[in-house]
Amino acid sequence: MSITSTLDLAAVLIFALSGGLAASRAQLDIVGFVFIACLTAVGGGTLRDLLLGRDPVFWVQQPEYILIATGAAIVVFFTAHLLESRYNTLRWLDACALAVAVSAGTGVALSVSAPAVIVVTMGVATACFGGLMRDVVCNEVPLILKPGELYATAAFAGSLTALLVLWLAVPTFIALLAGAAVTFLLRAGSMVFGWQLPAYKSRPPR
Amino acid sequence: MSITSTLDLAAVLIFALSGGLAASRAQLDIVGFVFIACLTAVGGGTLRDLLLGRDPVFWVQQPEYILIATGAAIVVFFTAHLLESRYNTLRWLDACALAVAVSAGTGVALSVSAPAVIVVTMGVATACFGGLMRDVVCNEVPLILKPGELYATAAFAGSLTALLVLWLAVPTFIALLAGAAVTFLLRAGSMVFGWQLPAYKSRPPR
Amino acid sequence: MSITSTLDLAAVLIFALSGGLAASRAQLDIVGFVFIACLTAVGGGTLRDLLLGRDPVFWVQQPEYILIATGAAIVVFFTAHLLESRYNTLRWLDACALAVAVSAGTGVALSVSAPAVIVVTMGVATACFGGLMRDVVCNEVPLILKPGELYATAAFAGSLTALLVLWLAVPTFIALLAGAAVTFLLRAGSMVFGWQLPAYKSRPPR
Repeated sequence: MSITSTLDLAAVLIFALSGGLAASRAQLDIVGFVFIACLTAVGGGTLRDLLLGRDPVFWVQQPEYILIATGAAIVVFFTAHLLESRYNTLRWLDACALAVAVSAGTGVALSVSAPAVIVVTMGVATACFGGLMRDVVCNEVPLILKPGELYATAAFAGSLTALLVLWLAVPTFIALLAGAAVTFLLRAGSMVFGWQLPAYKSRPPR
Repeated sequence: MSITSTLDLAAVLIFALSGGLAASRAQLDIVGFVFIACLTAVGGGTLRDLLLGRDPVFWVQQPEYILIATGAAIVVFFTAHLLESRYNTLRWLDACALAVAVSAGTGVALSVSAPAVIVVTMGVATACFGGLMRDVVCNEVPLILKPGELYATAAFAGSLTALLVLWLAVPTFIALLAGAAVTFLLRAGSMVFGWQLPAYKSRPPR
Repeated sequence: MSITSTLDLAAVLIFALSGGLAASRAQLDIVGFVFIACLTAVGGGTLRDLLLGRDPVFWVQQPEYILIATGAAIVVFFTAHLLESRYNTLRWLDACALAVAVSAGTGVALSVSAPAVIVVTMGVATACFGGLMRDVVCNEVPLILKPGELYATAAFAGSLTALLVLWLAVPTFIALLAGAAVTFLLRAGSMVFGWQLPAYKSRPPR
């Protein structure tokens, strides 16, 4: 099993858990949990594969991905009430999935020899799109739009890191792990210590 | 004309009518009606075809689909004011379109020999995605997220039914009709009698 | 460089500026600006290419598009506070981008010999989809849904104009320019003079 397949699998699992938690906040039934979990889990990778012309998309010939997301949704349905704070758990799961998905997106784009700019774009798009769809559909404020938090920025830095490390002639999977680590550390630091970039805030919108 | 083309045609027509009604609630002009109607009508099938790598998507080489959706939107523009309740009509049209689109999605996935899990996923995605886009764009609460209603669940049960009936060596079009019937009955029962699955409701979201 | 590539380039640049302004209204940081700008800039053309089966989509093999959108976002981040009214500027940039993108969409669809109905559909979809995604993600009321304004209508008229002019055996790039001009004039007239089509307004929604 290739490194990118493994990363896709991990991203699918963790994003599916976060999707289940979003479904619990919308008070859906168990099929609604599965729907939102699958949407979140495969959303980013599906966009990446469509954009790169990978045909068919990664989960269509391999039912395992959908089954894993379904299983994760069912587990969340029956256990989410045990959590102290579902929203906080959702954010941390999302941070983990973001990190893993950055690597998966970067890795796939590298494997089809995309130009560097596109590799980074795919890393960010794969990482951000699943969670964005989850939040738009569940009518939550998208995490990517929360002012004062690193989100797309963390994904961007992670994907760039993977690319730079790779140029040092390091094996691919180490470069991808480095990218995931940087993404997670920046996102976690933002959530715990309030790290942020200066936001545009000159005047109220009008 | 194949059974799946016929089903696609019926789903396009009925979803377009529901899209026109959503446009009437948003008080758009006639081109806005056509835009929302087309988005709703071909949204689910387009996603399905992109995911399965069917190239190009079903309506691009066959202008009839867009023309039918356009015609439906124009009819709704001039007749919607005659309706007793536009929202209620929208929900019933959506239920019909959901049922037909489940069959269309399931049938197309079967015709490209997708694995069983993917067949069901395509049935649900084809059925739910057009209405979801309609509701997100028109800023309505997505029907799929309404607590206490069967929606994705009805689509899931219908697609599964079609698959199970097919395994009994029944002709494809009968299996697809059975799937549509199950979807419609569950959705209609949910709207009329309040049928529902238990929703996640342990504690208020936080 | 072909006429459609030039139009795509112009649409990417102008849509990216409008995306940057939407990001400024959401008070994002600089990476958020780039994210929204890229989404807006390539959204419509990406949909068009996926629907037409153009593989890969126009910007994936040519990093320039993403770099231009990124540059535009950075410029907006540092200069948006100088604007008298960011929302008004956004609307005018969007009108320009709409006009250019109508031509780009129409031109690409013509170049793959799509039927006339599909050519017009692609013109409208290419033009409207980037701005629609920008507005849905940034939680603005989509410009396309503003009652009492020509938007999809302007795009539709522009695409149809290009097609009709082309049937007069006029060179393609003149036909495309005529389409862009009609789109811009209708949209601008709608913003300045309140031109509109009668909207559906018989009774309040229910």
